[in-house]
Amino acid sequence: MHRYRSHTCGELRSADIGKDVRLSGWLHNRRNLGGILFVDLRDHHGIVQLVVHPEAPGSQAVDERLGSLAKESVIRVDGRVVGRGADNVNPELATGDIEIEVTEIEVLGTAEQIPFTINAEDGVNEERRLEYRFLDLRRERMHRNIMLRSAVIAAIRRKMTGLGFNELATPILSATSPEGARDFLVPSRLHPGTFYALPQAPQQFKQLLMIAGFDRYFQIAPCFRDEDARADRSPGEFYQLDVEMSFVEQEDVFAVIEQVMTELFTEFGGDRHVTSPFPRIPYREAMLAYGSDKPDLRAKLRLTDVSDIFAGSGFKAFADRHVRALAVPDTAAQPRRFFDQLGDFAVEQGAKGLAWVRVGEDLKLTGPIAKFLTEQDVAALLARLDAGPGTAVFFGAGEFDEVSKIMGAVRVEAARRAGHFEEGVFRFCWIVDFPMFERNEDTGAIEFSHNPFSMPQGGLAALEGKDPLDVLAWQYDIVCNGIELSSGAIRNHEPDVMIKAFGIAGYSAEEVEREFGGMLRAFRFGAPPHGGIAPGIDRIVMLLADEPNIRETIAFPLNGNAQDLLMGAPSTVDESRLKELHLNVRRPS
Amino acid sequence: MHRYRSHTCGELRSADIGKDVRLSGWLHNRRNLGGILFVDLRDHHGIVQLVVHPEAPGSQAVDERLGSLAKESVIRVDGRVVGRGADNVNPELATGDIEIEVTEIEVLGTAEQIPFTINAEDGVNEERRLEYRFLDLRRERMHRNIMLRSAVIAAIRRKMTGLGFNELATPILSATSPEGARDFLVPSRLHPGTFYALPQAPQQFKQLLMIAGFDRYFQIAPCFRDEDARADRSPGEFYQLDVEMSFVEQEDVFAVIEQVMTELFTEFGGDRHVTSPFPRIPYREAMLAYGSDKPDLRAKLRLTDVSDIFAGSGFKAFADRHVRALAVPDTAAQPRRFFDQLGDFAVEQGAKGLAWVRVGEDLKLTGPIAKFLTEQDVAALLARLDAGPGTAVFFGAGEFDEVSKIMGAVRVEAARRAGHFEEGVFRFCWIVDFPMFERNEDTGAIEFSHNPFSMPQGGLAALEGKDPLDVLAWQYDIVCNGIELSSGAIRNHEPDVMIKAFGIAGYSAEEVEREFGGMLRAFRFGAPPHGGIAPGIDRIVMLLADEPNIRETIAFPLNGNAQDLLMGAPSTVDESRLKELHLNVRRPS
Repeated sequence: MHRYRSHTCGELRSADIGKDVRLSGWLHNRRNLGGILFVDLRDHHGIVQLVVHPEAPGSQAVDERLGSLAKESVIRVDGRVVGRGADNVNPELATGDIEIEVTEIEVLGTAEQIPFTINAEDGVNEERRLEYRFLDLRRERMHRNIMLRSAVIAAIRRKMTGLGFNELATPILSATSPEGARDFLVPSRLHPGTFYALPQAPQQFKQLLMIAGFDRYFQIAPCFRDEDARADRSPGEFYQLDVEMSFVEQEDVFAVIEQVMTELFTEFGGDRHVTSPFPRIPYREAMLAYGSDKPDLRAKLRLTDVSDIFAGSGFKAFADRHVRALAVPDTAAQPRRFFDQLGDFAVEQGAKGLAWVRVGEDLKLTGPIAKFLTEQDVAALLARLDAGPGTAVFFGAGEFDEVSKIMGAVRVEAARRAGHFEEGVFRFCWIVDFPMFERNEDTGAIEFSHNPFSMPQGGLAALEGKDPLDVLAWQYDIVCNGIELSSGAIRNHEPDVMIKAFGIAGYSAEEVEREFGGMLRAFRFGAPPHGGIAPGIDRIVMLLADEPNIRETIAFPLNGNAQDLLMGAPSTVDESRLKELHLNVRRPS
Repeated sequence: MHRYRSHTCGELRSADIGKDVRLSGWLHNRRNLGGILFVDLRDHHGIVQLVVHPEAPGSQAVDERLGSLAKESVIRVDGRVVGRGADNVNPELATGDIEIEVTEIEVLGTAEQIPFTINAEDGVNEERRLEYRFLDLRRERMHRNIMLRSAVIAAIRRKMTGLGFNELATPILSATSPEGARDFLVPSRLHPGTFYALPQAPQQFKQLLMIAGFDRYFQIAPCFRDEDARADRSPGEFYQLDVEMSFVEQEDVFAVIEQVMTELFTEFGGDRHVTSPFPRIPYREAMLAYGSDKPDLRAKLRLTDVSDIFAGSGFKAFADRHVRALAVPDTAAQPRRFFDQLGDFAVEQGAKGLAWVRVGEDLKLTGPIAKFLTEQDVAALLARLDAGPGTAVFFGAGEFDEVSKIMGAVRVEAARRAGHFEEGVFRFCWIVDFPMFERNEDTGAIEFSHNPFSMPQGGLAALEGKDPLDVLAWQYDIVCNGIELSSGAIRNHEPDVMIKAFGIAGYSAEEVEREFGGMLRAFRFGAPPHGGIAPGIDRIVMLLADEPNIRETIAFPLNGNAQDLLMGAPSTVDESRLKELHLNVRRPS
């Protein structure tokens, strides 16, 4: 028999009754019922019940050892599988039909008094959990989350490989990248006064792989940003499914990612449904109808621009301002409290208040602002909103961006409160047709809206012939349930087009060469059209695990203060190490 | 039809003749034969021949564009698949039965004059190749190596997952590890004067994963050592197949790794044969018989200790020294030059010379030192070496370690030169039974021989009852064709045993607690017996690709001087960045 186990703790069933088995695992829990000792033995695979009957021959020695061991001790036991009897079957447990009558026990790893419970969630604070992460990870929820993460990543790899993508590793010690966030730096020992940077993303390398001819690349890529923590962003490192493809258009990228995400979220989403194809929503439509380029499509309501209806209106709060309306069907009968609470919510989002009306059975409006609306206003409004009796209509007025932000949030909140929110689904969409340029409100200058390295729709001709503010980019976001998983783009691989685009944004050709010479040089030696995307692994796992805190999905995360409490990092280093790296620590002045 | 391609450049065959196709790729090569233009179009998938006949309608425009484009331009062509005719079939090319009569061409990416040839190896120096890595990677050999690496890693993942291992990522920003090599450090912005370290290996984290109950872990783990480059070691980062298992003994680890390596080297080794099971060779036997703990078992010769035969001998060069003999069958008839050259080789290895004799048909010895050997010496020697007529015997004498090193090298060289070296095979072995302790020759003190964290064979009882120099460790190396792929061990997971082992090596319990308190603490909360290994991915790929330089198997390696010549790293950073990191660069004094 194997030195430690003939079976795991999760696999024994009725069919195994009568077998002599050897098991190893952690002492999960212990109960003494009328002199009979019951122990739950746990390993990675499950939990099995051990039993020691006082009348069994030789049981006393086993009983004494099992009875005195601390919880979380690691033991090996030998014993025989017996049926539990109908009354004692535990349907909660995969091994609940059987138990093990223990004949021998060996302690493999002793345990001191544990600082928090493993077999139940006990609300211990996160710092303590991270300090003892090796215990925290034994808890059922954490163990499940980490295994989910592992399974999700393995499935992604399988799917990408199946679709003809090759996983290629890009360097971790490299140069500063122009991604915009703050790099982590690594001092060089061999080259005094110089530094490597950890990659914020392998963006340039994956484009170089396309230029090198590798056609379809992916990588579960570690990325590093020296930015402060957020609930959905770990400080330090994170992972993305980095993808790039050659000889493709936008829809080719969508086809791959839609297939992978649909399969993935179906496989790991439990009974949560995924709908594909994912709708393509132009950026401007998204901002108008959802007030956001990250719309949560589980909220089954849309915003409508009604500014023109109130142009020149006598109602000063709306007149000649940007006015967005949210029609919520079957809501007019809600109590006043409903409207007040939604108003409070809007105020929390930064609004001064939330105007609203109810549509009565007679299509007459009631509510605080009803009296300010002319018959003509009402008729136009009801037609525009396609609003019938029982509908409540909420309004935001002001600057376009501010109204979008506030009414976008009100849309989701109203949907939740009024029963227009679909639970138990993953609603993906693509946001497309991002504008290439925008006007800086303060300076009046034309600037890049998002990614300067995306290909403008229409190429050089569009840049030369169109109003820059009308030029759209082959750039896109993928959004699920209101969470942006990634931006992506068809890249601008033509040096002429790049220099022209930067020219419009106010850069001279010399500046472009100076700043981005490395990539331009590569583009000048035969670059294929290419594009890609990089969905965040952490966010995918958070969605699937339904965990709001990213650290619950990572085995050994830094804490919110970017510290590793288990290993004690970051820490001071010896003067000799600093000298070797040609550095002095700067003392606070 | 797709915007860029209906087919790839590698897939068209006779069966496709008559089809209208669209292809995109790089202009690989061009020939004009009697007015007919032939172009090789290349993509990731292969090469296909394009042809432009001058008499074809509209061919002139296509001919002019194709004829004037620089090599490595990226183009799209439309055309029809035609058969080549028996005389022109190219059996070297998968698409060699067909060619494409081009009707339309579009330039997708122009190319400047390339700095070295892509379609032939031209001996350009490595620095230039790394500077233009995006071109270098287009070369057939490099493309094949990188794809091999990708396929090998994907296969490893598949196999490990199939064997019930879960891939779990461990942190890259963490604390200094006690691995012995030099860490790369990452200054902390949030915690002035402190540093993260990049992991030399995830050793502690994988052990913590075992303590957390994850049972079978693996990871294609990025590792970082700030050490100087060698042919088989990239400066900066490298990857290992990091493995750890709970509730296992040494043979359980061997069973997994043997299966994975055998399958992997069979799948990717071409016609090179793999023999399994891998022999287990005790460390002391390896040192004696092969002069090395990394024996190249393709060399079918063994060394033999003959010191006792010469104890008290009149032959002063051998008398009372450590003498190792290498018997090489079927070699006595080699010309004098053979012996001289092998002698020169021994001198290169540090020997003063190489003693040798030939065994004649009459079992009489001839050769330079024959006259110093007594009849008794000869009889004992021939019996010990089982040496018959035609055998040549080489000798090394001196200190054990020095003789091992020199005669170990001579063994392999002699096998190569004398036809006792097996080509076209992968000969794996396990080196086992490493001693736990050794005596420091200078101080006389007992020290750890290899890894202090391995479990001593026999556990606490062995440490308490045996001469420390006789205690063996559950530690092992895996070696293939003379290359060490990894060390591994069953870990010491018992705090008492660890403190005792360190005590023997001269550490007080307080010192152990201070140095390794983090791991000791984890071991005190229920640690399972566990062990693992971490074969180097780079070395595996080098063996499979048959490349002696590790950089030929990595897409974007640092050069031997730890620089990224493509991206320009490491580089200086702005003073503001240094300030943010609380650092000053130390000026040379």
